[in-house]
Amino acid sequence: MPNRQPVIAPTIAVDAMGGDHGPSVVIPGALEAAREDGFALRLVGDQSLIEAQLQGLDLTGLDVDVVHAPEVAGMQDKPSDVVRRKKDSSIHVAVSLVKNGQADGVVSAGNSGATVACGMFIVGRIPGISRPALASVMPTAKQPMILIDVGANVDAKPRHLLQFGLMADIMAHDVLGIQRPRVALLSIGEEEGKGNVQVKETFELMRASSLNFVGNAEGRDVFTGDVDVVVCDGFVGNVALKLSEGLGQTMGHVLKREITRTWLGRLGTMLNMGGLKRFARIVDYAEYGGAPLLGLKGIVVVCHGASNVKAIMNAVKMAARFVRQRSIAHLEQELAKDPGLAAGNDATHKNTAGAV
Amino acid sequence: MPNRQPVIAPTIAVDAMGGDHGPSVVIPGALEAAREDGFALRLVGDQSLIEAQLQGLDLTGLDVDVVHAPEVAGMQDKPSDVVRRKKDSSIHVAVSLVKNGQADGVVSAGNSGATVACGMFIVGRIPGISRPALASVMPTAKQPMILIDVGANVDAKPRHLLQFGLMADIMAHDVLGIQRPRVALLSIGEEEGKGNVQVKETFELMRASSLNFVGNAEGRDVFTGDVDVVVCDGFVGNVALKLSEGLGQTMGHVLKREITRTWLGRLGTMLNMGGLKRFARIVDYAEYGGAPLLGLKGIVVVCHGASNVKAIMNAVKMAARFVRQRSIAHLEQELAKDPGLAAGNDATHKNTAGAV
Repeated sequence: MPNRQPVIAPTIAVDAMGGDHGPSVVIPGALEAAREDGFALRLVGDQSLIEAQLQGLDLTGLDVDVVHAPEVAGMQDKPSDVVRRKKDSSIHVAVSLVKNGQADGVVSAGNSGATVACGMFIVGRIPGISRPALASVMPTAKQPMILIDVGANVDAKPRHLLQFGLMADIMAHDVLGIQRPRVALLSIGEEEGKGNVQVKETFELMRASSLNFVGNAEGRDVFTGDVDVVVCDGFVGNVALKLSEGLGQTMGHVLKREITRTWLGRLGTMLNMGGLKRFARIVDYAEYGGAPLLGLKGIVVVCHGASNVKAIMNAVKMAARFVRQRSIAHLEQELAKDPGLAAGNDATHKNTAGAV
Repeated sequence: MPNRQPVIAPTIAVDAMGGDHGPSVVIPGALEAAREDGFALRLVGDQSLIEAQLQGLDLTGLDVDVVHAPEVAGMQDKPSDVVRRKKDSSIHVAVSLVKNGQADGVVSAGNSGATVACGMFIVGRIPGISRPALASVMPTAKQPMILIDVGANVDAKPRHLLQFGLMADIMAHDVLGIQRPRVALLSIGEEEGKGNVQVKETFELMRASSLNFVGNAEGRDVFTGDVDVVVCDGFVGNVALKLSEGLGQTMGHVLKREITRTWLGRLGTMLNMGGLKRFARIVDYAEYGGAPLLGLKGIVVVCHGASNVKAIMNAVKMAARFVRQRSIAHLEQELAKDPGLAAGNDATHKNTAGAV
């Protein structure tokens, strides 16, 4: 890895109107991130709403400004409409700041299909990357790992999957701090030759690449912590992400119901509050921030609509970390080193447009 | 639903040599099932090993016989080799009993690819069913549901997915006792039009069918208990099954680690043992038995290699229940009623051959 000069203070644009809770959750989360890690913020959205939210919050030492955007893109808006027509929406304006060099990265908890589409069409792809992909950091029994793609592309081709592996490899190195990430391909058996046609072809491409490819991983290997990056197409990845989220919530719900059913259980639960809280923290998606859309000429991080203050904070920190680590330059360097990794741009682009 | 005469006492063949623990786990599990639900057993495998295992077990009132099979199909054997060459293996002999009318159903915890292949090629498909599929019963926050296909077919076509829905619908009715099962299609967004090409085409077929089709389900909807059947191809389903298993184990492991870290936590855990045990029971795959391979002319149930006595017991009970409910005749009737549901047999058959 080349030595890269750190950017002294990144500027992160935040879509203040996004998410189920809007400015009341997004702004405190963003301010907390900026305070802890020391970078500049541009809050994008309805100026009067943002200023009302900032009233009474402690801004001492923070570099914060407000960028007015009079419109909001709702959950029902088609992503392509937000790109083409809702040019005054907070998502569109926030992403455009990155395009115009007025911010280094952007975070939104709004309509995720629209955020992905704005990222693709306003910021644009890095030359040689044909399909940007959404990466999600997931908890494991040991350290966190990255699942890619969790929903930007359905029906991806093997060479796209190879690029997903490369992009997540750089993220694992730069953002998670893993020296030589172990990259695996999600399949239905560990042996070579298991899987569908797409996986079998990708296996060969990955083996021939410069990645630290450790072979196929099955669904059960995702959470062991024995691999750092798991690559799959956006359909499988989105199912896997939401399944994990749903199962985690269901297990938490059933656990709570069963351990508080009797008075002895409720007493035991009280005594165990510390351990149960540590458990909840490890399995809580909010600890792991948002999902960056990798492969663009700028940093775009998509957050869950239901994000709480902590989730926003971690997502904004993640965006700043990408900028500080100069991960985009890093990806461009890797593509230049190994032309086999770069793929021509596709004529068509299939986007799930809001699946995530 | 037509009234169906119950079969008085089914005969279930059990591959006594299968699974990580062999006869020492399989035989007690099978005997327990037969004792509780009252049916005949045929234990298949090395006669002297089986008889040694039966020594000292209480067989009072049970109808059990032993069918000698001198060979064992190992985990490394290719499924096609077991079908063609290992004709004296316990899996091959046990499945052949069903083919020859000497048993009504068969259960194996051995090489699952080999069991699937023996089911396909020895028992054979029901006319009109082009792709048999593996169904798995999964826990939810409410009652259990069925995920189909969990690994028999990769690269399935929309009309195959429609049949998976039909087969699981009948299983949900007959085996889980759900009057009008809610059938959903696994996708990456609830709205119609979300998903890959395969899902979009299947959506139309399902909507036009006689199934109680409730639309797309996302990964997070699988465990809520609001749908009874979730349909997907064998690649996605196998990933989903193993991911759930892995996440469940990881969460259990992290929970145990965190709640027993301090002496206060250990005390709380002791007081909470009842609730924690109920929780563990709900999320334990062993409660839900094996995975039946649906669409064959006989009942074939595949068990996890790591199955314990309880898992074997539940799988054997499930096989007997299929027989008692005459589910195969039921499927044939449904196919006859709606010729659109039946599909021509495919020229080629892609089998994951042991992925499960």
